[in-house]
Amino acid sequence: MPDPSTCAPQPARIFTEAERQALYNVIANRRDVRNEFLPDPIAPEVLTRILRAAHMAPSVGLSQPWDFLLIRDPARRTQVRAAFTRANDEATEMAPPEKRGTYAALKLEGIDKAPLNICVTCDRSRGGDFVLGRTHQPDMDLYSTVCAVQTLWLAARAEGIGMGWVSILREEDLREILLLPAHVTPVAYLCLGHVKDLFDGPELAHRGWASRTSLEDHIREETWD
Amino acid sequence: MPDPSTCAPQPARIFTEAERQALYNVIANRRDVRNEFLPDPIAPEVLTRILRAAHMAPSVGLSQPWDFLLIRDPARRTQVRAAFTRANDEATEMAPPEKRGTYAALKLEGIDKAPLNICVTCDRSRGGDFVLGRTHQPDMDLYSTVCAVQTLWLAARAEGIGMGWVSILREEDLREILLLPAHVTPVAYLCLGHVKDLFDGPELAHRGWASRTSLEDHIREETWD
Repeated sequence: MPDPSTCAPQPARIFTEAERQALYNVIANRRDVRNEFLPDPIAPEVLTRILRAAHMAPSVGLSQPWDFLLIRDPARRTQVRAAFTRANDEATEMAPPEKRGTYAALKLEGIDKAPLNICVTCDRSRGGDFVLGRTHQPDMDLYSTVCAVQTLWLAARAEGIGMGWVSILREEDLREILLLPAHVTPVAYLCLGHVKDLFDGPELAHRGWASRTSLEDHIREETWD
Repeated sequence: MPDPSTCAPQPARIFTEAERQALYNVIANRRDVRNEFLPDPIAPEVLTRILRAAHMAPSVGLSQPWDFLLIRDPARRTQVRAAFTRANDEATEMAPPEKRGTYAALKLEGIDKAPLNICVTCDRSRGGDFVLGRTHQPDMDLYSTVCAVQTLWLAARAEGIGMGWVSILREEDLREILLLPAHVTPVAYLCLGHVKDLFDGPELAHRGWASRTSLEDHIREETWD
């Protein structure tokens, strides 16, 4: 039974202008890092703070479906790197001919260079057969896991740690290399390491691959039409 | 062509201990709000800051697949509320008998009470046939959209705005009510409003539905086993 004395809302913390600005600055300065990782290891207490933040992410029915696999072994990272290369070669072939050269020249991962890789997984059986909030949207557990990833990303940035999300990987390859059971889905393969320099906007924009859009073009009133 | 003078990393902003702590406090004080919304409207400039933050979320191949439908019309919210009630009645039947009473007593949405609802959608055609990073994980666009949702949630909290994610809704109902075309997926239906009081931990924990786990139980080294 819950303690009834705590089962009521309390005065909510009010954030100052400086605190709000700190949050906005972390959000604005977060980057998808591929090549700027320094070799210095991440101190255990820093890593714990980052993971503790990720573990405070919202989760459907408070199911907390995520797990964090910490991957440092160079041999294992070499296997992941090889899986990336296979997938990326296929992706290069899939690119439209006029963009193929540009695509092939992009560095899209820091698997070897970053001292730490983290695979964030989603245990699809977590919470049992009935998870509050998953009855009509079964992928809510995957979405909760992504919320943890983005929280981890922001916390890492505030700690001076860059992060990159490598999505050019086959799920089956990750399952095999990381010994994932069938009920566990790899959601995000992440590279983390200290950074001293970063691009001052999305790297893909700097490199002419894509452009940032205006917020105004993403807002609609009441319905899609 | 990109400007070569900007196509290099720059010294990365360093965050102070106070700024880091501000981020961690926002993360720790974020709640999934259902009942604490005040009727006061959200000022346009506050809403713009929150949406601007969400629009800075990471997106696969810089595809920025999200859109924000701002829903205020009480009649439309009544339709969404009815769709929620239908789904929630079904969910109540799906709950294990011993938890059915507890489930039925929970308030799981603030659709009417919150002055603003936002449906965050994902345009699955955004970026064309070849989106960098989606070749081997086609759901990365949905995941990017979820990153925007979590960023929006944190920004809202820092502004004194509570948010709740309502997932007990059928996708088809949202499509119909919000006139979504086939290539657009509703990812998150959100309720937002000012709050003065909040639970000091997850409401589902306070109400005895589920418990917070320890971070330590979610960390694995190198592989799953």
